[in-house]
Amino acid sequence: MFSKVLVANRGEIALRIIRACRELGVASVAVYSEADVDSMHVQLADEAVCIGGASSKDSYLKPDRILAAAEITEADAIHPGYGFLSENPRFAEICASCNVKFIGPSADVIRQMGDKDTARNTALANGVPVTPGTGLLATPEEGLAAAKKIGFPVMVKATAGGGGRGMRPVFKEEEFISQFQAASNEAVACFGNGACYLEKLVLNPHHVEFQVMGDSHGNYIHLGERDCSMQRRNQKIIEECPSPLLTPKLREKMGKASVDLISAIGYENAGTIEYLVDEDENFYFMEMNTRIQVEHPVTEEVMGCELIKEQIRIAAGEALSDHVRNAEPRGHSIECRINAEDPYNGFRPSPGTIDLWYAPGGKGVRVDTHVYSGYTVPPHYDSMIAKLIVTGASRTVAIARMKRALGEFMISGIKTTIPFQQEIIDHPDFIKGTYDIGWVGRFLEEKGL
Amino acid sequence: MFSKVLVANRGEIALRIIRACRELGVASVAVYSEADVDSMHVQLADEAVCIGGASSKDSYLKPDRILAAAEITEADAIHPGYGFLSENPRFAEICASCNVKFIGPSADVIRQMGDKDTARNTALANGVPVTPGTGLLATPEEGLAAAKKIGFPVMVKATAGGGGRGMRPVFKEEEFISQFQAASNEAVACFGNGACYLEKLVLNPHHVEFQVMGDSHGNYIHLGERDCSMQRRNQKIIEECPSPLLTPKLREKMGKASVDLISAIGYENAGTIEYLVDEDENFYFMEMNTRIQVEHPVTEEVMGCELIKEQIRIAAGEALSDHVRNAEPRGHSIECRINAEDPYNGFRPSPGTIDLWYAPGGKGVRVDTHVYSGYTVPPHYDSMIAKLIVTGASRTVAIARMKRALGEFMISGIKTTIPFQQEIIDHPDFIKGTYDIGWVGRFLEEKGL
Repeated sequence: MFSKVLVANRGEIALRIIRACRELGVASVAVYSEADVDSMHVQLADEAVCIGGASSKDSYLKPDRILAAAEITEADAIHPGYGFLSENPRFAEICASCNVKFIGPSADVIRQMGDKDTARNTALANGVPVTPGTGLLATPEEGLAAAKKIGFPVMVKATAGGGGRGMRPVFKEEEFISQFQAASNEAVACFGNGACYLEKLVLNPHHVEFQVMGDSHGNYIHLGERDCSMQRRNQKIIEECPSPLLTPKLREKMGKASVDLISAIGYENAGTIEYLVDEDENFYFMEMNTRIQVEHPVTEEVMGCELIKEQIRIAAGEALSDHVRNAEPRGHSIECRINAEDPYNGFRPSPGTIDLWYAPGGKGVRVDTHVYSGYTVPPHYDSMIAKLIVTGASRTVAIARMKRALGEFMISGIKTTIPFQQEIIDHPDFIKGTYDIGWVGRFLEEKGL
Repeated sequence: MFSKVLVANRGEIALRIIRACRELGVASVAVYSEADVDSMHVQLADEAVCIGGASSKDSYLKPDRILAAAEITEADAIHPGYGFLSENPRFAEICASCNVKFIGPSADVIRQMGDKDTARNTALANGVPVTPGTGLLATPEEGLAAAKKIGFPVMVKATAGGGGRGMRPVFKEEEFISQFQAASNEAVACFGNGACYLEKLVLNPHHVEFQVMGDSHGNYIHLGERDCSMQRRNQKIIEECPSPLLTPKLREKMGKASVDLISAIGYENAGTIEYLVDEDENFYFMEMNTRIQVEHPVTEEVMGCELIKEQIRIAAGEALSDHVRNAEPRGHSIECRINAEDPYNGFRPSPGTIDLWYAPGGKGVRVDTHVYSGYTVPPHYDSMIAKLIVTGASRTVAIARMKRALGEFMISGIKTTIPFQQEIIDHPDFIKGTYDIGWVGRFLEEKGL
């Protein structure tokens, strides 16, 4: 086992990793930007190193500073969390060259799955269904010809895209050229790479993702799925486990496909395979995230296991724990991402000082947060300030509990997404479990928001 | 189902019951003394009624005021929590006569199990082992003759005793008369009834209790055991589920005895059967508590069920939920009772204002508390301010988590038992799981405390 793990992240996930290290008897090092000096992850780590200015590119995105912090603190491993450098193959390589273990898959696998086109081909080659589509397209005109063959609607996707950027749906032939160019231009601006491909656009799709894990001993498993269809502009708002959409048969089929894929590529550590699922039980590979996900706790609660600890163990060369390999689901879990945003004003970020912070507690309630009364939410990072995870014996119990817990939350000084999430939790479509990934957009439109 | 439940209690258990009501869609009424106006249970209930002065006997022990509060708020049921009126058969009768459902067993059953001597005879009649002992004794001399027959050491116990009062161990013949009189006199002073009986004193006993439940449809189950051997002067400090002492065979035997007993008496609602267990796998009925226990959450976490909700359902005439009847244990759970006491000064109560309250969070951590930053702990009640419950895949994981969670707790302004519990959690005897009910006393003596 490692003697000291550096956590190359901030916010709740940094705290999550520090707690896992402490429980494993491994020392932890926090790194922080000047804007994060008062964050709870800095307080609770065994050591903390300031790595630069408030802007992410001056701190959390600086491999050299992070590795210098690892060197001076003698950390022998780095956990990248999610976002920032977590899916950067170059960072994984630099870690290796500095003799610091990167807690995640190999740089080669990150690269293979990080390029959407390569990932898609890998899925296809291993029998995992993908939406009908194309390879990279040289020109918009080549795209148009392919789109006519696939049939509209289609989705234009930049191979380097992510977080909803570099994507455009096209419903009509005459809009194709301009939408293709818009996606490509956006991808050039955001990612420095404008290459695009096409996919058949699945109607009313649900976002269902499988949690997978592999170790260096040849064990490859999945730990069930999460439904993340409740999203606004590709940003997840509420996630649940299990998915209300999946039948046992479909779950088995998708689980098998997921395990086949990670076995084929020799995937080591935790990962997530995202699928689009339509209401006729067709599923299509969307992408693979080669890191821990924000919403991993709903899996932990239902499966009775701990993904961060398993990540650390696997990176240290251990085999997957027996209780994880034999995990059976129990109950139902739902997560709300509590963001410092004003949901009734275009979800505008609402940074500032939190005068009062009273988080819900009691049976079946887990709160993962770096925030406390008096904390100031800095304006420099993503707006998530807490994850509220509730678990109960059934989906009905979990929904009632989420309603209760959201109602108990007291936060003053900033706006949060809680009132919006309360509306969703009360909505008949959520209660029935019939929402697709377009639901939030339509709901906001109906409300004129 | 009830439309409104009045919670005849205070502190964390009041909050626990209010939360369960909210999740069941049942309105809740808090009652509170003048000293508890700022308690979180008053804030989170749907309605709140002040029932009198700070002293328990002027408020939480006043059946007439509680029933008046139920009448004016039109509550159709009362949950008594633990302590206060929860095991008072007269209160249960008054509720019935006022047409308010008492959430608990019938007054007759409370009476039958509340009298220790009757309870013991009931256990014996139903094949549940009890320690060799006597019926009520007319004189100290009659006691001495019986003690010689049973063999020393023996325990003198007042039939009305509880919380460690009205009990005296006697190791030698020549001490018997004086110890008998001391127990009897104490019981007269505390409970108005000095009648005593004898029991064989079990050496190095462990306190293991079974959680049982019965409904009005003839279902009688147990939900496994809790080990509560970590106690100081009969006050539990740390509890765990499952017990590190029990073998699967002994667990089955004790579980069967527990279910046999509640079936025989037609027990309705939640209850706990407390046993002494020695290291040779002998177990002896100690007493039955006809109410929810403080430490019920460790059972909830391991068994994946909710005891308070089941209590309410059963009282409303429903059958035990299927998932509770079929519950299987998963993992290990430990609870620390966080008390406002100074463990290094004779556990002297430490009421006062809590300037800072930061409770631990994250995976596997549950905190049940009515306390928050700025709250003032009143001096009038028992000193428990929070229950910290941690759960993990194994006992080892749970211990590491408890250590982590206790370390994260930040409380300033008052003293708490946390540093003492940290010492216990780190102690090899606790880690091995070999502690008996005398352990804390010996540990304190060794430390000169």
